[in-house]
Amino acid sequence: MSKLILFQGDSITDGGRIRTNDWDLNHQMGHSYPFLINAKLGSEYPEKDFRFINRGISGNRIADLFGRWKEDTLNHNPDILSILVGVNDAYFHTHNNSGSLADRYEKIYQLLIDEAKENNPDIKIVICEPFALSVKDKEDFIENIMVYLKPMQEKAKLIAERNNAIFIPLQKIFDEAAEKKETEYWIWDGVHPTVCGHQLIANEWLKYCKDIL
Amino acid sequence: MSKLILFQGDSITDGGRIRTNDWDLNHQMGHSYPFLINAKLGSEYPEKDFRFINRGISGNRIADLFGRWKEDTLNHNPDILSILVGVNDAYFHTHNNSGSLADRYEKIYQLLIDEAKENNPDIKIVICEPFALSVKDKEDFIENIMVYLKPMQEKAKLIAERNNAIFIPLQKIFDEAAEKKETEYWIWDGVHPTVCGHQLIANEWLKYCKDIL
Repeated sequence: MSKLILFQGDSITDGGRIRTNDWDLNHQMGHSYPFLINAKLGSEYPEKDFRFINRGISGNRIADLFGRWKEDTLNHNPDILSILVGVNDAYFHTHNNSGSLADRYEKIYQLLIDEAKENNPDIKIVICEPFALSVKDKEDFIENIMVYLKPMQEKAKLIAERNNAIFIPLQKIFDEAAEKKETEYWIWDGVHPTVCGHQLIANEWLKYCKDIL
Repeated sequence: MSKLILFQGDSITDGGRIRTNDWDLNHQMGHSYPFLINAKLGSEYPEKDFRFINRGISGNRIADLFGRWKEDTLNHNPDILSILVGVNDAYFHTHNNSGSLADRYEKIYQLLIDEAKENNPDIKIVICEPFALSVKDKEDFIENIMVYLKPMQEKAKLIAERNNAIFIPLQKIFDEAAEKKETEYWIWDGVHPTVCGHQLIANEWLKYCKDIL
């Protein structure tokens, strides 16, 4: 049976995918790292018959994922579940105090994973580190977000270790890229990767996940 | 000065890109082969500082490209201009006799190229072969389209040779892929490539264009 890879997350995962028209296969995957991963794996290994689902939704915090976990994750019964979430929690905390900070982030993340494993004990879970990068004229905004995001990044790693999940360290990938070229080239507004930034995520994802594919 | 690569075409190029909000860099490139080419080149060669513009519009025939050639191509002054157009001409010919058949396709294509060269004598032009592939329950539909598309494919190649442009042979790529796996895996409705089909186009584009990048 072919493996189903499901991507969960916020706008970085979403990539403008369409929500309706299941018959229209043009626009299901959005334009983001899941599209790149789908394109690369699907074209290189057609014999594996991978299936891909993107269920990222722009603006989502970790509590939003939990809210729609049943219909948008568990009911699809993925073999590989990839999650990237957190930056909206840090942002919404600063914005209107509706984000989950590190301890609540950890608690809800564990609930997500527990239910996924209960649903499918053989599931492979991939935890992508949430990230942000300072860009011109947004230094204070990003610095403020990082105050709350950093403890979540530590929690994300901890949760991965505790649950035998694959952890994709993305903050350092962007930090390293920023040494080669201005940060706006990789993350235009400090939060949303550019097309090239999405390729960095996809490269890292493919590198760390190669043994579970 | 960094090279500007502009993609022109129909829905296959378009990929659901947003038309408005120039400030929102999340959704400019759509989810199609230009996204994959941008992601690959931009992340691998940040020092080259490539710039990418997608101006594909869903449903476009070659006459539609000519209609918006000034604002959507010439005024951007690209260094590399990549064009994929033709399948809608074949389709609309069968649908309501509004497509351009091979001779008119050739004539308009030459107008497009003449103006692009007049605008920038150093421009590099990339002509992607239009393509289609028979899929289940659409055999007659695609067969009918191919009657008109095949002569256009020959014209596309001829135009490329006559104008010292790079020709990307895409029909054979999809024909070959269809030997490995069912056609729907690559082109779900016979006309629109899947995510994996877009990777095949991007791979071929990158292979043929490597010397002009």
